[in-house]
Amino acid sequence: MLSCTEITRVFSELEFPFSLGSDNHSGVHPKILNAIQMANRGHAHAYGMDELCQLSEKEFKRVFGPDVQVEYVFTGTSANVLALAPYLKSYNSVFCSDLAHLNVDECGAPEKFWGAKLIGIPSQNGKISPEQIEPFLDRGGDQHHSQPAAVSLTQPTELGTCYTLEELSKWREFTRHKNLMLHIDGARLSNAAAYLKCDLKSLTSGIGADVVSFGGTKNGLLGAEAVLIFNPALKKDFKFYRKQAMQLSSKTRFLAAQFYSYLENDLWLDIARHTTLLAQELSLELNKFPEITQPFPCESNGVFATFPQTWVKALREKFFFYIWDSDIQLCRLMISWDWTRELNQSFLNHLKKVQKCFPIK
Amino acid sequence: MLSCTEITRVFSELEFPFSLGSDNHSGVHPKILNAIQMANRGHAHAYGMDELCQLSEKEFKRVFGPDVQVEYVFTGTSANVLALAPYLKSYNSVFCSDLAHLNVDECGAPEKFWGAKLIGIPSQNGKISPEQIEPFLDRGGDQHHSQPAAVSLTQPTELGTCYTLEELSKWREFTRHKNLMLHIDGARLSNAAAYLKCDLKSLTSGIGADVVSFGGTKNGLLGAEAVLIFNPALKKDFKFYRKQAMQLSSKTRFLAAQFYSYLENDLWLDIARHTTLLAQELSLELNKFPEITQPFPCESNGVFATFPQTWVKALREKFFFYIWDSDIQLCRLMISWDWTRELNQSFLNHLKKVQKCFPIK
Amino acid sequence: MLSCTEITRVFSELEFPFSLGSDNHSGVHPKILNAIQMANRGHAHAYGMDELCQLSEKEFKRVFGPDVQVEYVFTGTSANVLALAPYLKSYNSVFCSDLAHLNVDECGAPEKFWGAKLIGIPSQNGKISPEQIEPFLDRGGDQHHSQPAAVSLTQPTELGTCYTLEELSKWREFTRHKNLMLHIDGARLSNAAAYLKCDLKSLTSGIGADVVSFGGTKNGLLGAEAVLIFNPALKKDFKFYRKQAMQLSSKTRFLAAQFYSYLENDLWLDIARHTTLLAQELSLELNKFPEITQPFPCESNGVFATFPQTWVKALREKFFFYIWDSDIQLCRLMISWDWTRELNQSFLNHLKKVQKCFPIK
Amino acid sequence: MLSCTEITRVFSELEFPFSLGSDNHSGVHPKILNAIQMANRGHAHAYGMDELCQLSEKEFKRVFGPDVQVEYVFTGTSANVLALAPYLKSYNSVFCSDLAHLNVDECGAPEKFWGAKLIGIPSQNGKISPEQIEPFLDRGGDQHHSQPAAVSLTQPTELGTCYTLEELSKWREFTRHKNLMLHIDGARLSNAAAYLKCDLKSLTSGIGADVVSFGGTKNGLLGAEAVLIFNPALKKDFKFYRKQAMQLSSKTRFLAAQFYSYLENDLWLDIARHTTLLAQELSLELNKFPEITQPFPCESNGVFATFPQTWVKALREKFFFYIWDSDIQLCRLMISWDWTRELNQSFLNHLKKVQKCFPIK
Repeated sequence: MLSCTEITRVFSELEFPFSLGSDNHSGVHPKILNAIQMANRGHAHAYGMDELCQLSEKEFKRVFGPDVQVEYVFTGTSANVLALAPYLKSYNSVFCSDLAHLNVDECGAPEKFWGAKLIGIPSQNGKISPEQIEPFLDRGGDQHHSQPAAVSLTQPTELGTCYTLEELSKWREFTRHKNLMLHIDGARLSNAAAYLKCDLKSLTSGIGADVVSFGGTKNGLLGAEAVLIFNPALKKDFKFYRKQAMQLSSKTRFLAAQFYSYLENDLWLDIARHTTLLAQELSLELNKFPEITQPFPCESNGVFATFPQTWVKALREKFFFYIWDSDIQLCRLMISWDWTRELNQSFLNHLKKVQKCFPIK
Repeated sequence: MLSCTEITRVFSELEFPFSLGSDNHSGVHPKILNAIQMANRGHAHAYGMDELCQLSEKEFKRVFGPDVQVEYVFTGTSANVLALAPYLKSYNSVFCSDLAHLNVDECGAPEKFWGAKLIGIPSQNGKISPEQIEPFLDRGGDQHHSQPAAVSLTQPTELGTCYTLEELSKWREFTRHKNLMLHIDGARLSNAAAYLKCDLKSLTSGIGADVVSFGGTKNGLLGAEAVLIFNPALKKDFKFYRKQAMQLSSKTRFLAAQFYSYLENDLWLDIARHTTLLAQELSLELNKFPEITQPFPCESNGVFATFPQTWVKALREKFFFYIWDSDIQLCRLMISWDWTRELNQSFLNHLKKVQKCFPIK
Repeated sequence: MLSCTEITRVFSELEFPFSLGSDNHSGVHPKILNAIQMANRGHAHAYGMDELCQLSEKEFKRVFGPDVQVEYVFTGTSANVLALAPYLKSYNSVFCSDLAHLNVDECGAPEKFWGAKLIGIPSQNGKISPEQIEPFLDRGGDQHHSQPAAVSLTQPTELGTCYTLEELSKWREFTRHKNLMLHIDGARLSNAAAYLKCDLKSLTSGIGADVVSFGGTKNGLLGAEAVLIFNPALKKDFKFYRKQAMQLSSKTRFLAAQFYSYLENDLWLDIARHTTLLAQELSLELNKFPEITQPFPCESNGVFATFPQTWVKALREKFFFYIWDSDIQLCRLMISWDWTRELNQSFLNHLKKVQKCFPIK
Repeated sequence: MLSCTEITRVFSELEFPFSLGSDNHSGVHPKILNAIQMANRGHAHAYGMDELCQLSEKEFKRVFGPDVQVEYVFTGTSANVLALAPYLKSYNSVFCSDLAHLNVDECGAPEKFWGAKLIGIPSQNGKISPEQIEPFLDRGGDQHHSQPAAVSLTQPTELGTCYTLEELSKWREFTRHKNLMLHIDGARLSNAAAYLKCDLKSLTSGIGADVVSFGGTKNGLLGAEAVLIFNPALKKDFKFYRKQAMQLSSKTRFLAAQFYSYLENDLWLDIARHTTLLAQELSLELNKFPEITQPFPCESNGVFATFPQTWVKALREKFFFYIWDSDIQLCRLMISWDWTRELNQSFLNHLKKVQKCFPIK
């Protein structure tokens, strides 16, 4: 490595305090960064034609089964939008939770790219159920109405809960029976597997998912997401939609290398177990505070808790986190791959201090 | 760095032969990769709110002037499409060269995202001129016709030629007078600056460009492009269109770090001078072969040459390159940041062998 | 008129039974058809440049005030979509009732043409209130979320109820204060004016509407809708969006003639009073049947009533109508311009027979 | 008919001078208007479910063959855009003449609705040939390029010329062989049939057209166009795209009645023969003027002629027509269904006067 004294000086003056803000506030896992460095030799074909893409594809087939087609994109938004793009026609409608990223956090990207209708279904603990879709299927064939075509489930949900395998099995039956595509938004799917103690196959092809957004960036990658296509009907056209969606990377070897390393020796599982465990430990500790309530069970790497109004500012001064619902002081504490048990303890120590400073009668 | 023996073994078995295929076949410049590593500490806010983005912005303002607004995206396609998005209405039309990436290499992304009409103008040596746009402006105000709104110039062009400062000055006058936005597709703008021996300001704000796609990936970055916005009318809405175009990076610090390093101490110029010089040296040497013709002047890091039909296969066996027009064996030899004078010589040696094996009467 | 004996014979064999199906099941009011015939002389410029368009515009200015800009389109769907098109950017969101035609009856046309997000708000008696929009405005400026831009109210609503002038006044204050465009879907606006006993100005410019879809086809026209633009920001670009939306009529004189005749001597009011009165009379009579309930007040030309399950089929055999909600036998009885008091009586007589045939214990 | 004295007075004061401006400057053929009146009885189901639609469909099957599916829309623009919509994906490209309405006269409606790329091919006498498409087919399968999917031919062309049956046969072979959809924009297809002395089947299903825009409005209808679908792959989805394109008429019986009357007893052929004959007679007479040149053969109801610069203004004062190319005074004289031999003579008399007033040396 060249000596880069100047950048070293400038960058080293910056502070990068650990936080509970988001799992995309953390950086790159050292094994992932190492893979990028290892891939940085000589020249390789661009646009997915390199040998690292082939190596990485093998790892994906090992983990997700031989029928999976892997396609890399840059963002979770694009993974979600492109996953269904090869199937949807602009007169279709897609169902998802009212809290789904697709519905509220993608600035209308689905409607813009699909030209289709997205229908947000009221959720409970972040989840929706097949019975809620049923009434929308009445008007199939009627030219006045967008025609139902797909369901998108987030696993784990935006509230950190997980659909059980039984719930997923119901969704499998329902979508098959109603001829609807089933998409899984799995930006943190690894955490669901860690929590449910099952492999990734059971959460994807195993539950009949036609296509899955498999997250990387929130789990220690520099920046890469994978679209996993199981339904053959989606496989051929994907690449054209990806290019048209401006998501075709040129130096694909670096995306492939990240995922290769993430899957190799099940690094994904090590990270997911680590973050899920620390989240659950934190959740258990928070339960001991009578002033704090946790409206949802902790089933992945996020803890949702309502703190007394007077505490929030003081808490965030030391450990940044997002306020999910400011009306009720519902806060989200998000555990990243580089979070530690010591940091948990440090947060709890801080919490106890705040508890003392701002006693609740 | 952790020991990663397995990945080391697997990756090291792959070959990454140097080629003249494209400047995105090369990897990451060591200084850029170093910057990524340096940025990989602790936690930072996502979506452009980190301190590295602020540092990088300062570098951009130093190089491009204080009025520039910098926005990162993942690909050249998205830089080009998003650059004009905040200005265009779907009933507008945009003019570009018939060879422009916008027109032929982006799988219809502009039409899809804008909903507007792209009009490819027949080019000479890759360039177009204001007189060619004039006839299309007649029908302004007529509801039957897409309304002219912008011109996009590629600098250097897809054929490796550069618009002169005088030509650009004419475009400045024309677009101002006709109330058209002026966009520069500068995926290799650094090379134009090196060839024309001028600074980047002269090629952007200096010629009245409203918005510029400033390339990184083809110049040694891992994967990042910058949209440089000069016209205030484009500044406010850009971020919403970027998010809707699925181009908002979460771990932005790593995009910012790449560009910081690319601009720091004018690394961009070192690289551009290097690749432009090697391309011109190669071009001069090819001129000595009577069997080879070069239809366009070599004005950046690409050499376009027609080889005898019998030579092409043998040449590409050792050094891969793309055949631009198979009817006339027009080939493109592209010089990357990691190309060397020795590699030039090695290619020429190979060429001489091929010349002997396949003599042209 | 030429003798057209053959068509006369063929057409006269068809039956056209009067029904309560929809106000677009009826034909053309004789005065409107007369206007079309009167306009059918010689040649006139196309695309809105004819003198009948000027005449008709004068009538619109008389009725809606001098600031109105009138634009003709073919369908209610296009009136609703185009009304807001000149203002919306694809990253915007629009609020409407969950029952609004925009939301459920236009096969996704808004999302397709705007590329923007449509948010259906749960309605009561077909109406929504400003307080329901408030929570969505929190995230203004945040690039992750579609940016709120407009509210669309249907007057009268899809359930035949009318927003009162007081309710509209609240909407005026709210949308102004929150910088939201206010659109009125007035496919049956004339009926609202008849019911509320106010003029059309009070229901449009008077309540600060920026743009209004003013219906014709459901009120006796052959096929024409008018978009009434009050906000100057929407006026200039409308024609380009209309053409791009494929809604520019060539023989515009015939659209203009229909509306001229509809407004002349307040034909619109005669028709609206007639259909509203007959609907209310029918509603009063239905109230006398203990087996029938009417969940919404009758405030325009539609009556919503739940009939005993056993009655519905028999009722529809003689007078066709639509079943609005098959779970509860909620039916919609729609009064057209050519409906009569005698037809009301005839329906009631039939109802009594059905009541006898299928007694409810 | 009611007495409508006021409208009668106001309308009768307007002048509707006959012109050569366009075949959409004329009004409604009396037989068509009679059909509308005949259809105006009682109530009929909306949205294509009425009996007149069935009657009209039978006439279409008689004229175009039993495999045709007929769908009504309001405008030629929408017929052209919707014809291919059920087949196109947004990553496709479509080829047409550079002069095609699709390319220059529809304000970007194809790009907007399809999201796809339209490629205008340089035309000769308004026509294009298969050899011109060939070079664009090279990059099939390459994700960087819009994928070729369809060809749209205008018959007769925008310059009044007709593709011969032999030329059409070549297109049939080419498009079949290359797996491209073949669309005919036949806004004036009746005139092509009259000129080529063949039936409409020979110009549509007979030449392997997958889908045809069959014009009505320019041939004496009040306002209606028909999309004729022959390829089964396009048939099922059309209605959803039409609704989403805001082209679903509610009172469809009136569109059906117009076309019923247009096809009944081959009224279409009477009108087309009449206008084609008068155009050719006018063309022959213009040939006698040495000052006038006609760059294209007269093969339908339009005459293209260049007049001396000094004549144009005087000519248009009495008989309005459009200047097609102001640089060379190329004018278009368009014959409508209500034009007469006497009007031809009247125009020629006026021409002779102008010739005398402005002699050309």
